[in-house]
Amino acid sequence: MTNSEVAAPIRRRPTIRDVAAAAGVSRGTVSRVINGGHWVSPPAREAVEKAIATTGYRANQHARSLVTGRSNSLAFLLTEPQDRLFADPTFPLLLRGAAEALTTRSMTLVVLVAGTPTERTNAADYIAAGHVDGVLLISSHESDPMLSLLLDLHVPTVTCGVPLGYAGRVPSVSVAEANSAHTMVAHLRERGRRRIAMITGPLDTPGGRYRLEGYREELGADYDASLVVHGDWTQDSGTAGMEELLRRAPDVDAVFAASDLMAAGAMIALGRAGRRIPEDVALAGFDDSGLAQALDPALTTMRQPFDDISAEMVDTLLGMIDDGPVRSVTLPATLVVRDST
Amino acid sequence: MTNSEVAAPIRRRPTIRDVAAAAGVSRGTVSRVINGGHWVSPPAREAVEKAIATTGYRANQHARSLVTGRSNSLAFLLTEPQDRLFADPTFPLLLRGAAEALTTRSMTLVVLVAGTPTERTNAADYIAAGHVDGVLLISSHESDPMLSLLLDLHVPTVTCGVPLGYAGRVPSVSVAEANSAHTMVAHLRERGRRRIAMITGPLDTPGGRYRLEGYREELGADYDASLVVHGDWTQDSGTAGMEELLRRAPDVDAVFAASDLMAAGAMIALGRAGRRIPEDVALAGFDDSGLAQALDPALTTMRQPFDDISAEMVDTLLGMIDDGPVRSVTLPATLVVRDST
Repeated sequence: MTNSEVAAPIRRRPTIRDVAAAAGVSRGTVSRVINGGHWVSPPAREAVEKAIATTGYRANQHARSLVTGRSNSLAFLLTEPQDRLFADPTFPLLLRGAAEALTTRSMTLVVLVAGTPTERTNAADYIAAGHVDGVLLISSHESDPMLSLLLDLHVPTVTCGVPLGYAGRVPSVSVAEANSAHTMVAHLRERGRRRIAMITGPLDTPGGRYRLEGYREELGADYDASLVVHGDWTQDSGTAGMEELLRRAPDVDAVFAASDLMAAGAMIALGRAGRRIPEDVALAGFDDSGLAQALDPALTTMRQPFDDISAEMVDTLLGMIDDGPVRSVTLPATLVVRDST
Repeated sequence: MTNSEVAAPIRRRPTIRDVAAAAGVSRGTVSRVINGGHWVSPPAREAVEKAIATTGYRANQHARSLVTGRSNSLAFLLTEPQDRLFADPTFPLLLRGAAEALTTRSMTLVVLVAGTPTERTNAADYIAAGHVDGVLLISSHESDPMLSLLLDLHVPTVTCGVPLGYAGRVPSVSVAEANSAHTMVAHLRERGRRRIAMITGPLDTPGGRYRLEGYREELGADYDASLVVHGDWTQDSGTAGMEELLRRAPDVDAVFAASDLMAAGAMIALGRAGRRIPEDVALAGFDDSGLAQALDPALTTMRQPFDDISAEMVDTLLGMIDDGPVRSVTLPATLVVRDST
């Protein structure tokens, strides 16, 4: 490791202390000048204003923020470990939509990852300090401790998906989970499939719970609990789930995975087992995240309207902050039929 | 789309206006109480303190931030379009290291993406407002307008890689770019290769410019300009670059790509052309980002110490903010030999 000196670096921004020192007054006097100049003698005010100019102190944003309580930014807060942000193809789509919705409003999207208790506490401190005006909470599990922290802090929050354990208390933007599962199972039945299995998401997430609910309702009397396995949204869990299904039910002729990524994992297991898709086993996913089209064979899936979900989340959150009407929104998903069914 | 009402939502946090209204005093009085209570009558102070309690107003962080100028957070600022954050395997590694370095200090890492002029302006406004204490600037191009904005705003900034156009003015943490290229070219020569080509990164980035410099120096009299093509760090540019090299120099027997991702692209082109790796063409990358090991054949590469780079960036930046010594740091990369050479 080699080091080299940096000439005249910018070490830190001038603070109110520097202004006070340069003006030869107390910090309280500087603060009063910044906050409108009440209770300050004209010479002291002049000295402070001169010191603000010479030190380059930027007081206005902090002061403004004190009055309006606005930072002109929203957090995109992910309560999963960071590696999921990069492994799961749905997050970039939500992030892109939210960033675009904010950019057009001259606002900043601040991405925060809080996957551990320490990160949660740090993120909550940051949010409580007013550095963001509200939170877009992505991927919340049932009774998410982060959501509980945000409610305690009175932070305006919108969740992506119905917030299990907080439904009716926090507005959310969701895809029609159960309805979408009905649609997909009906499509597989139309294809003549009779042993339709499901790889669910975690049952403490709305996408895990309600997509299973729709699958079960649509199958009715044909529902067979041995045809259901539970994944955790990762590709590996799709592979493991499919292997388990093939052991339990060698006659399975269709699989509905609750995400494209888990379907991609199932595809690996089916390939290893020598099952052709769709001839032997029809395979369907959920999301249409871009991955679906790239798979071979291309994957039939339910398309989530990610851009609309992000845009509705931003609208709903800004509406809350501006005292507008607060409502939860449910958006439809669309069946996209490709080669895998 | 269906909507449903949310009962008693949290619309926004109480502001100083709400406190003033509840206390029946001016905002200036509330501000003076928050800033230490000077120049306020005891009854007014009592009314304000009561109003702060009943409204739930959290004044302390803003007030503290006014005095210390600290937000207890650093920005991880990416000046590339958002899709590169997800497509380039090196960013998650830098992000993970930086997040860990901050978490242990009870600080928050704030990810900001500023890939367009509008996003740059919005991010600069956010940073200038004091919502972060400094900036870890990732992936800067020569004379990056974002870096210019940050310097104008007097924001402490550390860059990842030597900041072309600002060297000596901004501290940086870099891998030994030219030395690493020397090492790799020497390795390929030891393998008996004589027609060693290079796919560079963009020449307005330090990794693009200085890795080429090391390659050229190590080859000395053997340097042949027709064996150099320029990529843009993306996988597709590696594929296109390799195709161009095969057209120009069918006798090429080794390729050094300036990133693993571009090497992965070159691997696709070599496969299509029926060239075996390493028998016909030895292939080497740069980064050891995790992708290198996953390729088939596994890729020989220069391992960047990403965790150390992030940790040094955080140390250097916090040192600047705390008036410690400011220096640029250069870290060595390590040759990792696998099956591709």
